[in-house]
Amino acid sequence: MPKADEFALIRLWTAGRQSPERLAALGVKAGIGDDAAVVEAPEGHQWLLAMDTMAEEIHFRPETMRDADIGYKALAANISDIAAMGGIPRYALVSVSVPPSWEPERITAVYDGLYLCAEQYDVAVVGGDTTASVRHLVVAVALAGTVPAGQAILRSGARPGDFVFVTGPVGLSAGGLYGLLAQNRNGGRPVPPPPGRLVRAHQRPEPSVRAGRLLAERGWATSLNDVSDGLASECWEIAEASGLKVVLREAALPLAGELAAYASACGIDPLEWMLYGGEDFVLVGTAAPGRETEIREAFRAEGLPFFVIGHTEAGLPSVELMTPGGNRKKLEKRGYNHFGEGSRP
Amino acid sequence: MPKADEFALIRLWTAGRQSPERLAALGVKAGIGDDAAVVEAPEGHQWLLAMDTMAEEIHFRPETMRDADIGYKALAANISDIAAMGGIPRYALVSVSVPPSWEPERITAVYDGLYLCAEQYDVAVVGGDTTASVRHLVVAVALAGTVPAGQAILRSGARPGDFVFVTGPVGLSAGGLYGLLAQNRNGGRPVPPPPGRLVRAHQRPEPSVRAGRLLAERGWATSLNDVSDGLASECWEIAEASGLKVVLREAALPLAGELAAYASACGIDPLEWMLYGGEDFVLVGTAAPGRETEIREAFRAEGLPFFVIGHTEAGLPSVELMTPGGNRKKLEKRGYNHFGEGSRP
Repeated sequence: MPKADEFALIRLWTAGRQSPERLAALGVKAGIGDDAAVVEAPEGHQWLLAMDTMAEEIHFRPETMRDADIGYKALAANISDIAAMGGIPRYALVSVSVPPSWEPERITAVYDGLYLCAEQYDVAVVGGDTTASVRHLVVAVALAGTVPAGQAILRSGARPGDFVFVTGPVGLSAGGLYGLLAQNRNGGRPVPPPPGRLVRAHQRPEPSVRAGRLLAERGWATSLNDVSDGLASECWEIAEASGLKVVLREAALPLAGELAAYASACGIDPLEWMLYGGEDFVLVGTAAPGRETEIREAFRAEGLPFFVIGHTEAGLPSVELMTPGGNRKKLEKRGYNHFGEGSRP
Repeated sequence: MPKADEFALIRLWTAGRQSPERLAALGVKAGIGDDAAVVEAPEGHQWLLAMDTMAEEIHFRPETMRDADIGYKALAANISDIAAMGGIPRYALVSVSVPPSWEPERITAVYDGLYLCAEQYDVAVVGGDTTASVRHLVVAVALAGTVPAGQAILRSGARPGDFVFVTGPVGLSAGGLYGLLAQNRNGGRPVPPPPGRLVRAHQRPEPSVRAGRLLAERGWATSLNDVSDGLASECWEIAEASGLKVVLREAALPLAGELAAYASACGIDPLEWMLYGGEDFVLVGTAAPGRETEIREAFRAEGLPFFVIGHTEAGLPSVELMTPGGNRKKLEKRGYNHFGEGSRP
């Protein structure tokens, strides 16, 4: 679009969303409206930088995400990356590539969702840009966070004998996506509508900032990832970065009641969603075995879920699943693919 | 693309580009390969955050940019934003949305250009993501820079009576783009091929980091912008943000010899390119009149160009051009539009 229109539209989409007082309280010296934003760094902190992109037809379709969900989730995915380092999300930049077929009102809705998420997680939106796109909407968000120096939790610090934990149930987002796509499918066996909790998990995921901070502050986690690409894939990343084997106990994986019931109604084994479904935005990580009780109690005191789901062993990097019968099978490395064969009904 | 392929491709495109020693020297504690990068903040600095996106068919076409140019310019545009605040570019995040029609080798070339620019400006590439795209390549870059606290130069600080300067000739990129598009046009009057300097100005623009730092360190500039959207548009931004009138002297605008000659050969008035052509990445700004000699000498000592092109006056925000005959005409607010009517041959 012509630049003059662009400036007017950016104002339409962003002006008045966060008050000057609110931005100042969040450490913003100069926000949207200059060549770059100027922000304050808390003393003694390191910076965390993450970026995630959502593209139409790749990450969302009209039948899977409302317009506001797109903006909400684009920021939430980045917040989840900062949470997975044990950090505090702070400053977001937003780039939106707008095709002619998207009316400005729809983009306003995208920003509505983005700013809602920003408010919920105390993130200041400080800049970005808007460009035209020939055909598909692309929303890229970059997020700067901070973490007290030395507290960042990498995925490379797991040690053999650590236990493996996850900070919430997995597979909900994938189950929701399955149901949303199935409702709009032509032909095939009818599939019941997905429960609200599963739909919300897909459209309005909740990054685990408090859990990440708790683990980082106490120096408890030896490694940490968010489950953006599926539990198996994230455990593979920890296994490869740390140089060891991750063993998950199938019976210990947290299966939400709604997911079990919905999978059953659909005639599907929920394990596929739990292992290979992405975007749950819970955290998976490792910690030394002597810490288990202490961590459990701290999470309980904070009202946060915490599940021990396996352990690590010395060995070549791999991820194994121990069945209830005690057998082990190696889990594939494959990750999450929104509209690929693995996740389509 | 499936996630497993994505990880392999990201490694192909980014692995080994910047050595661990180089990254450590640039302040990177953890770069590509975790949920977020961990980087150090120099003490006493504020952070600058910028983001710029380049989309196929909107900002580049095969006839205007080689693949490596796309990566180079995507980062250079962000570096220019940091330079326009008086800052030091430091850490880049790169998001590439890849359509099936772009072979991995072509994306490698995009990254070649991006890393070349990163090396030239001491920028560490610390993360980002890669997604599929249905049809068009989109490259979004976010860049974090720093500036000693209090030195950042906003566009809102100009005062009536300041002089207006620019740190290099303008219009070169637009002239180069005109020539590149004209070479590939079917029909119409033939246009001579554009000179190398104009083509380079469009494909491999040079952000003005040294000029920005010089102005910021000494506290000289009262306002500053990079000429990404054209001189007229950038002066409008200063006029509106500072609440005053900007008056440019036509005879003082720096016209490069190659641009004058090429415009003449094409039968075009170069003033259109100089006022409304974007992406020159020189800096335009204001400073107090008493500082003029001092600044001129400092720029000369550093071997950097510096041109005084006008002044500011109290009044409603506007931008005027004073002709050699002494008449004034108001300049439109319109900005730069790559392939729009304004810039097409």
